[in-house]
Amino acid sequence: MQQPLILVTNDDGITAPGIRALVEVSSRIGEVVVVAPDSPQSGMGHAITISGPIRLHPVEVFDGIEAYECSGTPVDCVKLAKNVVLKDRNPDICVSGINHGSNASINIIYSGTLSAAMEASLEHIPSIGFSLLDYSHEADFSPGKNYVEQLIRFVLEHGLQEGSLLNVNIPNLPEGELKGIKVCRQADARWVEEFVEAKDPRGQNYYWLTGRFVNEDHEEDTDIWALQNGYLSVVPSMHDLTDYRSLKVLKESMEAVVQGVG
Amino acid sequence: MQQPLILVTNDDGITAPGIRALVEVSSRIGEVVVVAPDSPQSGMGHAITISGPIRLHPVEVFDGIEAYECSGTPVDCVKLAKNVVLKDRNPDICVSGINHGSNASINIIYSGTLSAAMEASLEHIPSIGFSLLDYSHEADFSPGKNYVEQLIRFVLEHGLQEGSLLNVNIPNLPEGELKGIKVCRQADARWVEEFVEAKDPRGQNYYWLTGRFVNEDHEEDTDIWALQNGYLSVVPSMHDLTDYRSLKVLKESMEAVVQGVG
Repeated sequence: MQQPLILVTNDDGITAPGIRALVEVSSRIGEVVVVAPDSPQSGMGHAITISGPIRLHPVEVFDGIEAYECSGTPVDCVKLAKNVVLKDRNPDICVSGINHGSNASINIIYSGTLSAAMEASLEHIPSIGFSLLDYSHEADFSPGKNYVEQLIRFVLEHGLQEGSLLNVNIPNLPEGELKGIKVCRQADARWVEEFVEAKDPRGQNYYWLTGRFVNEDHEEDTDIWALQNGYLSVVPSMHDLTDYRSLKVLKESMEAVVQGVG
Repeated sequence: MQQPLILVTNDDGITAPGIRALVEVSSRIGEVVVVAPDSPQSGMGHAITISGPIRLHPVEVFDGIEAYECSGTPVDCVKLAKNVVLKDRNPDICVSGINHGSNASINIIYSGTLSAAMEASLEHIPSIGFSLLDYSHEADFSPGKNYVEQLIRFVLEHGLQEGSLLNVNIPNLPEGELKGIKVCRQADARWVEEFVEAKDPRGQNYYWLTGRFVNEDHEEDTDIWALQNGYLSVVPSMHDLTDYRSLKVLKESMEAVVQGVG
């Protein structure tokens, strides 16, 4: 392959240290174009901007690298990158992140980082979302970089199945303690919410969302298991949400019962 | 079952005609509590509000029915309903919609309506998202009501598989032309974007997202086929995004190649 074209985005915003790490790794591999949100967009899921205009500006943030900041969501960034910024230049891969904090298990559905990667996969661009299990702004992204580079090179060389993306999470460990990668499934875990209630200066109630992550899926083939045991988790993911477990039984039980008034 | 408790939400906002239709049907079946956004939240996907406070106010919108408007996303509404409004009252079902416009196929991942239903399923509440294939504010929800009622009653009686929700779309047809329901899979379609570029009064560029829906999945077991042929589509859906097609082959090919530097 000639110099591959790599589209980089994220959800923590274009000035986050995590995207800087990903741009650095990507620029060792190919030509890099960055289109990322102009402000943090964590927890935006697969949101798109449909009721207002979106801004897009070229910025000098990464030395010598073509970069744009966008007022929209991470998914908007990918759509604008494909249709406005790159137009006829077809990216060979889209990488999103490195997110500050886990996107393992159920976090994938809330994550702007992974939604951006999924949007790219819908555009037929192989894609990877990367996340480090450290929420802090000062997170150290260097231990995982070697793996990030190998995973990008692997996907550039081998491709992914049509419609597939990779959800890669990196344990927060020193490089020497990273044991390797595990290709695994999404653990069946969830968040249990606890809302903090407070009063504003005018005496009006408001709520602040918080919660704790609960995993009762203790099999050894999950992303949570891999991360707890020192491995990077690699979950091939896709946009088909059909529950194939239920399809046949519901078809038989429901179609006969639910009828028109005739 | 004694009088079931039905949680109603949507993404078009608490004053939309679609939620009024759903509240009307639900109140024939059981006790209804409404927690819905105070403004339109279409296209919000599975977004949650994590960087700001959320407001929640009781409102008199539906005659004699307990209702709250919420400043957050549809997913926030479900989280607040479960943890703040209902607390120890456990809803027997959550219904979301009726959305003004299709949520068939890939629209499920952009849809606040379906994300609210999915959030309920994560909270172990059986749930259904309903959508009518008419985007207009003046959409006529009456033809599908009979089916909406039957589907809610079916799920209350039979339940759904753990973690499952139903994505129900209703063709925009007179009642006599609705042929029945089809339980089906999500068609593998997508949006092709076309950004409209314009200048604001100060001469700055902006973009407006638009696009057209493209379906190249012409099998007869999909939601798009059902809708095009006069049936309501019922897609059992879930939150596990793992691409099981790719799991084994990637496990074999990738784990051996991507290694630590040690």
